[in-house]
Amino acid sequence: MEVTVYLAGQIHDDWRDQVEKLAKEKGLPLTFVAPQTNHERSDNIGEEVLGKQPGKLYKDDAASDINNFRTQLLMQKSDAVIALFGEQYKQWNTAMDASTAIAMNKPTIIVRPASLIHPLKELSNKANVTVETVEQALDVLAYVFE
Amino acid sequence: MEVTVYLAGQIHDDWRDQVEKLAKEKGLPLTFVAPQTNHERSDNIGEEVLGKQPGKLYKDDAASDINNFRTQLLMQKSDAVIALFGEQYKQWNTAMDASTAIAMNKPTIIVRPASLIHPLKELSNKANVTVETVEQALDVLAYVFE
Amino acid sequence: MEVTVYLAGQIHDDWRDQVEKLAKEKGLPLTFVAPQTNHERSDNIGEEVLGKQPGKLYKDDAASDINNFRTQLLMQKSDAVIALFGEQYKQWNTAMDASTAIAMNKPTIIVRPASLIHPLKELSNKANVTVETVEQALDVLAYVFE
Amino acid sequence: MEVTVYLAGQIHDDWRDQVEKLAKEKGLPLTFVAPQTNHERSDNIGEEVLGKQPGKLYKDDAASDINNFRTQLLMQKSDAVIALFGEQYKQWNTAMDASTAIAMNKPTIIVRPASLIHPLKELSNKANVTVETVEQALDVLAYVFE
Amino acid sequence: MEVTVYLAGQIHDDWRDQVEKLAKEKGLPLTFVAPQTNHERSDNIGEEVLGKQPGKLYKDDAASDINNFRTQLLMQKSDAVIALFGEQYKQWNTAMDASTAIAMNKPTIIVRPASLIHPLKELSNKANVTVETVEQALDVLAYVFE
Amino acid sequence: MEVTVYLAGQIHDDWRDQVEKLAKEKGLPLTFVAPQTNHERSDNIGEEVLGKQPGKLYKDDAASDINNFRTQLLMQKSDAVIALFGEQYKQWNTAMDASTAIAMNKPTIIVRPASLIHPLKELSNKANVTVETVEQALDVLAYVFE
Amino acid sequence: MEVTVYLAGQIHDDWRDQVEKLAKEKGLPLTFVAPQTNHERSDNIGEEVLGKQPGKLYKDDAASDINNFRTQLLMQKSDAVIALFGEQYKQWNTAMDASTAIAMNKPTIIVRPASLIHPLKELSNKANVTVETVEQALDVLAYVFE
Amino acid sequence: MEVTVYLAGQIHDDWRDQVEKLAKEKGLPLTFVAPQTNHERSDNIGEEVLGKQPGKLYKDDAASDINNFRTQLLMQKSDAVIALFGEQYKQWNTAMDASTAIAMNKPTIIVRPASLIHPLKELSNKANVTVETVEQALDVLAYVFE
Repeated sequence: MEVTVYLAGQIHDDWRDQVEKLAKEKGLPLTFVAPQTNHERSDNIGEEVLGKQPGKLYKDDAASDINNFRTQLLMQKSDAVIALFGEQYKQWNTAMDASTAIAMNKPTIIVRPASLIHPLKELSNKANVTVETVEQALDVLAYVFE
Repeated sequence: MEVTVYLAGQIHDDWRDQVEKLAKEKGLPLTFVAPQTNHERSDNIGEEVLGKQPGKLYKDDAASDINNFRTQLLMQKSDAVIALFGEQYKQWNTAMDASTAIAMNKPTIIVRPASLIHPLKELSNKANVTVETVEQALDVLAYVFE
Repeated sequence: MEVTVYLAGQIHDDWRDQVEKLAKEKGLPLTFVAPQTNHERSDNIGEEVLGKQPGKLYKDDAASDINNFRTQLLMQKSDAVIALFGEQYKQWNTAMDASTAIAMNKPTIIVRPASLIHPLKELSNKANVTVETVEQALDVLAYVFE
Repeated sequence: MEVTVYLAGQIHDDWRDQVEKLAKEKGLPLTFVAPQTNHERSDNIGEEVLGKQPGKLYKDDAASDINNFRTQLLMQKSDAVIALFGEQYKQWNTAMDASTAIAMNKPTIIVRPASLIHPLKELSNKANVTVETVEQALDVLAYVFE
Repeated sequence: MEVTVYLAGQIHDDWRDQVEKLAKEKGLPLTFVAPQTNHERSDNIGEEVLGKQPGKLYKDDAASDINNFRTQLLMQKSDAVIALFGEQYKQWNTAMDASTAIAMNKPTIIVRPASLIHPLKELSNKANVTVETVEQALDVLAYVFE
Repeated sequence: MEVTVYLAGQIHDDWRDQVEKLAKEKGLPLTFVAPQTNHERSDNIGEEVLGKQPGKLYKDDAASDINNFRTQLLMQKSDAVIALFGEQYKQWNTAMDASTAIAMNKPTIIVRPASLIHPLKELSNKANVTVETVEQALDVLAYVFE
Repeated sequence: MEVTVYLAGQIHDDWRDQVEKLAKEKGLPLTFVAPQTNHERSDNIGEEVLGKQPGKLYKDDAASDINNFRTQLLMQKSDAVIALFGEQYKQWNTAMDASTAIAMNKPTIIVRPASLIHPLKELSNKANVTVETVEQALDVLAYVFE
Repeated sequence: MEVTVYLAGQIHDDWRDQVEKLAKEKGLPLTFVAPQTNHERSDNIGEEVLGKQPGKLYKDDAASDINNFRTQLLMQKSDAVIALFGEQYKQWNTAMDASTAIAMNKPTIIVRPASLIHPLKELSNKANVTVETVEQALDVLAYVFE
């Protein structure tokens, strides 16, 4: 049984590579999909496809059109979602992706540091599992195949 | 035609009172529902119902059980959602409520200051309308009844 | 039993008034809702709420945000849809509203002149009933209450 | 990850061949499906299967039965939709297919010339992305696989 | 709590009047809706609204457009369905209405004589309850309010 | 805003009366619905409507037809569910009703003694809130109206 | 693109073999599934699995349990449905399967002789296409792959 | 046609091995998935992933997070469910899994000894088939492929 996992969350370090490496080490039959992880490309994709926009609001909206197209397509093809929150930034996309996944009945794991327990409490409560490290998230995925 | 609107978002000022006052001034047939706006009550509701919990994580999780019960019930009974973001705090509940509303096909208005255009761009793109003030949100609601 | 009907379609004559008048004459317990029928207001609503936009594309997109908010809310509260096509204009909003209604399992009546049989053939085929006049559409609605 | 894309829209030039050629050049794992692109066959399919009908309305309705069967089956098996509008004709089938796809939560790209911005504004607003050329549509699809 | 019940089934005797009379006697807060019970009107409604059709197939199809519009609207507004089968006729509409109700998760009661046990066995099995008389069907409805 | 609550669970004491009394004391705008609480009537309803059955299995199945009709109708009309587990009996109906409510996205409260923590752990985890007393369940409902 | 087709309908001649033969001749990538076509086996399956039942009603109900399990599983795995009606028998299972398929949005073809136009008119009207022969049904399926 | 079956139920004997052995003997194209069958591992998985919890309630809740993640993912990927009840224990997870499967329209078989007819009567009534032995359950699955 092949399982596809959408990796929502911040794109400022290599946590997705760690996830894939751990999955390979454990020999799990997982395929991972994710948002665009090149931050600049993600911010500019609207203008790169549609041309120069008349200001930041419009540039951002054009980029979001295409980022949301990508996320919607890949999340619908996924069987589960891991959403990782870091300590910096607003990360509203991560909250949006996790909430959307839960509303679509995708089994969802949240990864967040202990410092974020309080602000994430309602979202953690709606997700299936909340852990603090990528290793723990992989332990949960591995458990499905035991 | 009566319309019920869920007012998601921060609970640190009286913006919901403004919304209700504007709706009354415009004579709109709107009923408003909302999360618990007494912050302390919202944080403590778990222990107040279930008794002392063994630490902050557990206190927060108990509170979230009950806050999520409330939100799920009221949002399902609503016809539309306004989600207001302010400049402070993580506001992940607001992002969660707006995302859930959109996934449930509830028509959704986001209110946010211009300073938050960039971090909210994908969520704004999925909502029906994004405005900067409560007055504009009411203009949108009023337009439904013209 | 009260029934709410969404009146999709062109806004260049008073066909909605005819519908309401006929329903009143027949004593039918119907409530009608509709898109904004003031064309100028519909085109300008984006700028009127959000302020001047940097060009026609952006003005149109801002107006559509709010027009789609209105349609989504009112159509979800409706039990049936009448979609009227006239001989002029592209009327893609009418096609969009009728198609959306059908996809949402709203019982749907299309009103169109005989000259439009061919270009509307697939949409007519998916709707419940296609008629040529507003009187016929009301005959169908009246039949529900016989 | 294989992705199937339904190509809705006019059947008067070879734009679907261009799409397939561009996808092959980019090495994208895409399968394309589409409505019947032989216009005469599409118009006559009802009579070709069911025999001579008693007039144009009935011929058209018989053809639509079978065209709608095809579209419903293929769109349900698709992961995304591209809907292309040209400058001529009513193209209500294209509007119907795009609207249906959006109502089914299929990620949707609209391709239309700048001259159609205004009449398509509400439908564009509901689609994920609107572009002006087939090349841009392929850029969006390619972005999903980056 | 008001409950609306759709009364599907044959239109050759006054069983619906019996149902209403029994409900009144028991003082149940029930509203009943039903298909057109004037057989001739039901067969002719297509031509009466749309004009003379070019043959029986087309007359029947026109009538069905409008009968299905009525049934879809009324069944969606119902909380439960009673479907009565008699010993005569094909009664495929009754089978269609009961099956559709079950697929829509409407609680469903089938009323049929013992002579029809075998040909209705799979449909009876999918319905909630199968009884032999209208009195028994009302006993079931009454039980909901005990 | 009126809220209807389905009271699933054992029928061997008067806990539902307590719930209604507490709701009245708190002045909450709640309507309560429930399964048949007369145990004998619930066990015999099949034979009482359908006549003597050829054995216990068939008597039980006939009763279940009608009990499930009642539960399905009332739960679909409810906005929330309270499911109470006591220390005795299998109570699989309570588990079934709570699980069905959760699968239907009805906000759900489980009431159970501490002695049942372990065997109910997965179901508690899927419900919104788990409490130990009827008073606590009412505190949760009351919180929705603060 | 592989397409699975459920063949609902009477089991008194070899029409399903004809369908498969025609599909093979046309080289269509179709897989066919169907109800149990051995009539005796279908009638007896309940007793064959569950043992002797106390009468015809109970034997039929036991058989239906298992026939409905089969149909539900196979229809959910199908992309389209062909439902064939012959001139004899009640054929309520065929009407049930076709109606269920339509309610599940499965593209559906009805095959019936001209003599059944009138009693099947509402069901034909809800199906995508109605034809008179198996050959025509295959022509419709073949059209999907042109 | 490959079919995946979720095997819900008690984990105190090797009934799942019997199921798999019987399926192999019959040459059925079935894949089986199941909850964690190592009871200790299932009880401890929360603490094994998340670390020591402050008491039994919290240990159980942590385990349930992960067990429910597993069940939700595997059940969504299944085409049918077998739920086996034994004579011992509360087995509320089995009732929960069967009820959830039924609510998700998964074809469901219940296996239970005759001694449990009465307490399981409503759940049996909602499942497709109830049998007493694993062999009978396999007979039902085998029937799908005849």
